[in-house]
Amino acid sequence: MALVGGVGGARFLLGVKAALGLPGNTEHQVTALVNVGDDVWLHGLRICPDLDTCMYTLGGGIDPERGWGRADETWRVGEELKAYGAEPTWFGLGDRDVATHLIRSRMLRAGYPLSAVTEALCARWQPGVRLLPASDDRVETHVVVDDPENNAQRAIHFQEWWVRYRADPKPHRFASVGAEEAKPAPGVLKALAEADVVLLAPSNPVVSVGAILAVPGIRAAIRTGGAPTIGVSPIVGDRPLRGMADVCLAAIGVDTTAEAVGRHYGARGAAAGDGLLDGWLIHETDSAVVPGVAVRAVPLLMTDTEATAKMVRHALEIAGVAGA
Amino acid sequence: MALVGGVGGARFLLGVKAALGLPGNTEHQVTALVNVGDDVWLHGLRICPDLDTCMYTLGGGIDPERGWGRADETWRVGEELKAYGAEPTWFGLGDRDVATHLIRSRMLRAGYPLSAVTEALCARWQPGVRLLPASDDRVETHVVVDDPENNAQRAIHFQEWWVRYRADPKPHRFASVGAEEAKPAPGVLKALAEADVVLLAPSNPVVSVGAILAVPGIRAAIRTGGAPTIGVSPIVGDRPLRGMADVCLAAIGVDTTAEAVGRHYGARGAAAGDGLLDGWLIHETDSAVVPGVAVRAVPLLMTDTEATAKMVRHALEIAGVAGA
Repeated sequence: MALVGGVGGARFLLGVKAALGLPGNTEHQVTALVNVGDDVWLHGLRICPDLDTCMYTLGGGIDPERGWGRADETWRVGEELKAYGAEPTWFGLGDRDVATHLIRSRMLRAGYPLSAVTEALCARWQPGVRLLPASDDRVETHVVVDDPENNAQRAIHFQEWWVRYRADPKPHRFASVGAEEAKPAPGVLKALAEADVVLLAPSNPVVSVGAILAVPGIRAAIRTGGAPTIGVSPIVGDRPLRGMADVCLAAIGVDTTAEAVGRHYGARGAAAGDGLLDGWLIHETDSAVVPGVAVRAVPLLMTDTEATAKMVRHALEIAGVAGA
Repeated sequence: MALVGGVGGARFLLGVKAALGLPGNTEHQVTALVNVGDDVWLHGLRICPDLDTCMYTLGGGIDPERGWGRADETWRVGEELKAYGAEPTWFGLGDRDVATHLIRSRMLRAGYPLSAVTEALCARWQPGVRLLPASDDRVETHVVVDDPENNAQRAIHFQEWWVRYRADPKPHRFASVGAEEAKPAPGVLKALAEADVVLLAPSNPVVSVGAILAVPGIRAAIRTGGAPTIGVSPIVGDRPLRGMADVCLAAIGVDTTAEAVGRHYGARGAAAGDGLLDGWLIHETDSAVVPGVAVRAVPLLMTDTEATAKMVRHALEIAGVAGA
């Protein structure tokens, strides 16, 4: 079981598959609990960036340069939408990608839950990992920023802040809109209860892993489950491996260090608090003390799948789970 | 005012504009009443083939070879939908075209009527003709055919019959689903009441012009309006100019001749019946007698806009309306 966001999470899953000898090894199977906080309706299409990035990456359809979207992509639909003046124009909507969104949107409107839609889409991509959305309910991350138009604060959708404004202006806080009423998607709690190990991918601790944990019930299931939880630091040398995790961490008062993020996740064994970790992987050149958590320093750069698999094997080792 | 279908109707409108010296001539304006019987939801997109063909043709965006869809079109979205196994696969969905459908579908779902959506789309294309859907209500032509699976008859959407089956199997009859409850779109009856002349384009008399006339109120408005109605025969030398009008005419018991179609439309002046015509243009090599209707034989082949404009000028002349 792994909690994952988009690009980094998808590459992490490639490493998990390799570390477990998947496909081929029939003893192991992997469920990925994927962030849906970035999901958004645009142009009447339901777009699930993290689910799609995982699906395309694991299914061999990803653009390896960008890390998101389809390989050999074209942008005709988006250009035409712009020619019509249809807002928003800041979201890059690829033609091949549009087909995925069309099928998803049609199924959602027909009443299928996102988990069933994801399963249907994966029938084509065969990711080799069960991709489960954190929730079938609409839980969208919004970002409270200063409105440039006036002195008030306003909340904008995460995608607008991230893609349109490149994580600038500074976020005052993040809100998981809909989280209070959201339930974990079917199968999520069962998968957590039955997991041999729970891995936190080196995804953004705030808007990826954090958004998954915002769905009520998921954090408790991890804390009370029998499986050890091993996190992988997304911070290397006091900088995020990718994305803009530093800006997000600053907004919730967490330093951009491997130690601070480890402490933010906290120790699962501690009776007080809501900690999650039994183990914490940090980069070989970093150091961290996280009370109640086994910290191990190993190479964390996911330069290729084999390097990532080695990292995952370290995590499995701490958890006492045999890799392949 | 002109009642039009798709490809032939759009080319006819080019001729109408040229005959009236539009744009430039501010005395005249043209309203096209466009068939919506072909409209269909596919892949969650509302597709309006005739409205789009008119809009693209008049706005300079049409593919001149095919006569429908966008010039310089690509088919990536459709290929991907096929790769997913998403049905139906028989409808050619162009990438640039998808943008139009996305905007339309989004606006319809937001509650805008089709007439308002069409106006919004035309803000980009500037067709120079006011395009009005026959109705904002869903009125879709279905075709009753023999089910190849068993001996029963079943009704399929016009698009499936036309595009997928190329108008084969033989139609037993056509049904305008939703027509009973449909109302003409806002502005339709007013435009008919205020028209100087009503032209029936050489579009399919059954599934294009006939489907417009199936919307309650439109036929009566033409019959009781002050404007002369001039029809243009879609049949030349006992064959349809394009499309498969002969198959459609056979299903309603009308011969594929200019005379039979003229008689099918009937004389507007006749107190009995529900006739529409004051004048009927047939091809120069054809002959026809339509009681109560002024028949004129002129060149009807719309080989280019100037030839079409000449044809339209004949129609305007019968109606006593000055062209440019």
